[in-house]
Amino acid sequence: MMATSGAVTPGRLPRWGEAELVDCDVRVAVSSVDVLRPFLQPRWQDYMAEGGVGTIGAERYPKLPGPSVDLHLLRDRLLDRWQARYAVLNCGLEISSLHNEDWALAMARAVNDWLATEWLAHDTRLRGSIVVPPQSPGSAAEEIDRLGRHPGFVQVLLPVRAETPLGKRRYWPIYEAAERNRLAVGIFAGGTSGNPTTPVGWPSYYLEDYVSYAQAFQAQVVSLVSEGVFTKYPRLRVVLTEGGFTWLPGLMWRFDKNWKGLRREVPWVDRPPSQIIRDHVRLTTQPLDEPDDPKHLVETIEQLGSDELLMFATNYPHWQFDSDEGVLPSGLPREVEHRILAGNAHDTYTF
Amino acid sequence: MMATSGAVTPGRLPRWGEAELVDCDVRVAVSSVDVLRPFLQPRWQDYMAEGGVGTIGAERYPKLPGPSVDLHLLRDRLLDRWQARYAVLNCGLEISSLHNEDWALAMARAVNDWLATEWLAHDTRLRGSIVVPPQSPGSAAEEIDRLGRHPGFVQVLLPVRAETPLGKRRYWPIYEAAERNRLAVGIFAGGTSGNPTTPVGWPSYYLEDYVSYAQAFQAQVVSLVSEGVFTKYPRLRVVLTEGGFTWLPGLMWRFDKNWKGLRREVPWVDRPPSQIIRDHVRLTTQPLDEPDDPKHLVETIEQLGSDELLMFATNYPHWQFDSDEGVLPSGLPREVEHRILAGNAHDTYTF
Repeated sequence: MMATSGAVTPGRLPRWGEAELVDCDVRVAVSSVDVLRPFLQPRWQDYMAEGGVGTIGAERYPKLPGPSVDLHLLRDRLLDRWQARYAVLNCGLEISSLHNEDWALAMARAVNDWLATEWLAHDTRLRGSIVVPPQSPGSAAEEIDRLGRHPGFVQVLLPVRAETPLGKRRYWPIYEAAERNRLAVGIFAGGTSGNPTTPVGWPSYYLEDYVSYAQAFQAQVVSLVSEGVFTKYPRLRVVLTEGGFTWLPGLMWRFDKNWKGLRREVPWVDRPPSQIIRDHVRLTTQPLDEPDDPKHLVETIEQLGSDELLMFATNYPHWQFDSDEGVLPSGLPREVEHRILAGNAHDTYTF
Repeated sequence: MMATSGAVTPGRLPRWGEAELVDCDVRVAVSSVDVLRPFLQPRWQDYMAEGGVGTIGAERYPKLPGPSVDLHLLRDRLLDRWQARYAVLNCGLEISSLHNEDWALAMARAVNDWLATEWLAHDTRLRGSIVVPPQSPGSAAEEIDRLGRHPGFVQVLLPVRAETPLGKRRYWPIYEAAERNRLAVGIFAGGTSGNPTTPVGWPSYYLEDYVSYAQAFQAQVVSLVSEGVFTKYPRLRVVLTEGGFTWLPGLMWRFDKNWKGLRREVPWVDRPPSQIIRDHVRLTTQPLDEPDDPKHLVETIEQLGSDELLMFATNYPHWQFDSDEGVLPSGLPREVEHRILAGNAHDTYTF
């Protein structure tokens, strides 16, 4: 699964003849709803034409610089350049903001068929995430079952900013369908839930909003564990993308401690939350909340208590990804690097 | 200011002849609104009698075991036992939940006069925090000015779960009054703002609620820095009590990184947020989100990047405080221990 030879230059991506690389988070955007029309039933094409729908918040700030990602650019700049074995494509279309549940499902189906037709069919290195309407878990499960046997899809994608914490019973049909189809559940930095983006109300600046994304991820981890999702679905893996990971050690310590005092509330959480997290939650590496002192990052990764949690991602083409430098923490043992670069992805996704 | 001799047994409280001790968070509760009646104008006594108000959420879960804290118990179990030099009394009465702003101010005044009369006047080691109605910043500032010259008060107390992030302009009269009166601003784990207690909606269990408090503290730190509170009030110190601190290194890394990309939004944040936090934010040590491996806690404290941030607190009599064991992280250099035990409190509070 992993090559073990070859020198890895700390702080730089290795040459990819040496170790296998899996990029667990490449963002593809629907540049306009027009590209989805061929994949929509006439009913929904008419609905959108009559309603004058031209865009539905396909991408959030920051806007992508330059041209949209297309397949040629992706091959040239990512797959070929780094000899990636696989790349997982995530489309962050804001399906969750559509109040018409039938339309939301139709749009999710269209995105998935567009992904399969325009991307996955053209390059054997590409894999995709199934977009679903989280506000309609039953419909989401149907969509997961529709595509579950398609070899190109390896994950179900949910936005971290959900209407309610994602551990709630209402979402369980999604997890059941994901487990049934051997798909991971990816949670990405997006969503327009209506909830204030911090637990103390709406902030003023995008800086606050962006920094606060880490808190939404924290809340979802706490919810998924506390509600017993991983007890009910023991084969389920959840992948947190774009949320960072430096907050996880402190959260696990806090969560374990308070679980000891309050476990009667959640009898299905039958071992320390940190153990459940280590068994079921994975986190992508980019964007990286990098400290000035690289030693602190290595300490933080050690504090995770497992080499199986981190999975390499470029988050291509987002702004945080500027160069080959700094996309992988430096100073890690080589075997840990290799787990991050490919091994953990192979254990998480059914390629 | 600090004694520097004497052996400190790691993981246990030292004998307090050796180093000075300041307890920065002792909780006192208003057991019933009856105790406040002598400090309320007849108008408000009538208002509450006619409205049948018997309690206003004086304390949140978990309920205190056994008798309420009284002065004799506090002396016996805390002040004398550990030879504390000072103890800061914080009363978490939920003033912020009162929708009648005049009543909220009257109740805050009553609590403060009760604190001064029934506690501070009886023991020279006691200091207090001024309770204010955060929903009425102008009234809060008046109350701060009323008590600012009372030598017993060293801090203004705000609940972390506010209606909006605490950096917002509307709260600035509070910070201005605190700075004018040489008072710190303490933010404690409380408040009933109406906002969901996580950024992704209401959780199901108290376990989630309690673990999520750390996120409310994170959001407030981000707000206070982003809005420019510390640029406007350069002598202001904010003390986070009961919120833990192990989340702070990761938050500073994330905040600094994103500030570099988005600083045009917040031009008054003219240096990395972590530097501003280190200059202005202090955190109490109890309850402690303690990892299994004490080494990880020492690493985390080093990652704070300053020995001036942590201040000892027992959080007496809350449930997290069980024994002498574990109230101070073990394995710290002695000079750091002494800063935590007393030095940082002396630099923060005007005793």
